Amino acid sequence: MFKYKIEPRLSETDGLGHINNTVLPVWFEEARKDLFRIFNPSLEVKTWNLILKRFEVEIVNQINHTSPVTIITYIEKIGEKSLIVQQEASQDNIKVASGKTVLIHFDYSTNTASEIPKEIRDRLNKHLVQ
Amino acid sequence: MFKYKIEPRLSETDGLGHINNTVLPVWFEEARKDLFRIFNPSLEVKTWNLILKRFEVEIVNQINHTSPVTIITYIEKIGEKSLIVQQEASQDNIKVASGKTVLIHFDYSTNTASEIPKEIRDRLNKHLVQ
Amino acid sequence: MFKYKIEPRLSETDGLGHINNTVLPVWFEEARKDLFRIFNPSLEVKTWNLILKRFEVEIVNQINHTSPVTIITYIEKIGEKSLIVQQEASQDNIKVASGKTVLIHFDYSTNTASEIPKEIRDRLNKHLVQ
Amino acid sequence: MFKYKIEPRLSETDGLGHINNTVLPVWFEEARKDLFRIFNPSLEVKTWNLILKRFEVEIVNQINHTSPVTIITYIEKIGEKSLIVQQEASQDNIKVASGKTVLIHFDYSTNTASEIPKEIRDRLNKHLVQ
Repeated sequence: MFKYKIEPRLSETDGLGHINNTVLPVWFEEARKDLFRIFNPSLEVKTWNLILKRFEVEIVNQINHTSPVTIITYIEKIGEKSLIVQQEASQDNIKVASGKTVLIHFDYSTNTASEIPKEIRDRLNKHLVQ
Repeated sequence: MFKYKIEPRLSETDGLGHINNTVLPVWFEEARKDLFRIFNPSLEVKTWNLILKRFEVEIVNQINHTSPVTIITYIEKIGEKSLIVQQEASQDNIKVASGKTVLIHFDYSTNTASEIPKEIRDRLNKHLVQ
Repeated sequence: MFKYKIEPRLSETDGLGHINNTVLPVWFEEARKDLFRIFNPSLEVKTWNLILKRFEVEIVNQINHTSPVTIITYIEKIGEKSLIVQQEASQDNIKVASGKTVLIHFDYSTNTASEIPKEIRDRLNKHLVQ
Repeated sequence: MFKYKIEPRLSETDGLGHINNTVLPVWFEEARKDLFRIFNPSLEVKTWNLILKRFEVEIVNQINHTSPVTIITYIEKIGEKSLIVQQEASQDNIKVASGKTVLIHFDYSTNTASEIPKEIRDRLNKHLVQ
């Protein structure tokens, strides 16, 4: 499991006074940074090898911009060419949102999905929670 | 069905050269503007009466910033206090993404869900696609 | 002079109820699209040939998300390798913000500024306001 | 002087491969958080008492999303009702951008500028760099 701390921004609130729902996918992507490093240690775009297929976000509680948000990231399933990532955001020890993302191991030079190599798979397995 | 045209922004691309996935919920929220007007004609935040519960986004094709994106919005289901909205984004006549959003009719003064009034329900029914 | 219409987004408001100041550079960049087409007709990133050096934004009035914003873009000065762009945003016929941006004609393959070609300069001259 | 660390996001890059220029005002606003706390310790929007009048951003070097950015914030000038804030962003010990922002002490209930109280002024003075 990866743990990541987000400092909410005033610009991420909306007129209703809380964090706008569209910010959650941004935070969840940032919180997947350590997962991305397993696939692409440098994080450089030239060697990027993942593509996002789909995501779901559920808002459980209104989120304020006044205190940090902690995001837990773990892997639900590892397929041949893809993986399912689960994430949970909490603020002041209360769960505020959850997210599920399907990522595909992807070769941008040929625009095709490709098998996840064994050494990456071994590292991913350590973050698999069932 | 509502139809809305988005002009993608250079700032919405990412280092991989296409529109970043986190932009889709922003576009889908913008494209729900006419739906929001059924609930709150002025769009003023003081009279806002919807809260987002969950959303799903599926990316079907890579999206460029160089041509407009058309978003179709319709209603899949109207519940007592909530509704399910379906959206489809296309670019150059090719489907690029779809989205599903659950919205709750909400009273921000009491922080509780409330029944969708009949006159709003009647107007929503015209956009129900089954 | 270029004229561009922006539809403000709910997600662009902040907790104070108006459009957050950080949104202005995003809108101004979007409104420079027709100017960008003079430099790079396809808008493709592979052939992009401008880099932003600096910008200033002044907020003149609070901006709402409930009505469109019109942005006027014109050129204040054309240098050998750079240009200064002026922009004015108005809402409901009231000026709400202004912006000034310095762009450099740039060769990304060598990472150096380069002279603005005569044919681009001729087209730019039509949008020069003194 | 305030020091603040930003973790750049993949979604903040653009198609040219670096952090898009429009992200700088967002980072600078986030990095002013400790300054905001002097004016409004809770950071709650209900008691917010500042409004942004203008800002300038200069990009000194291209910014990557692969390593953290450090932002230094200090005060250049304290007026009767306003202050000028200077900020500098660096990455891997190289200066990448600078920003200058004019903030006005503001009473949102009457929509007018108001004098900066002595106790806030005293605390601001500690961050004045001349």
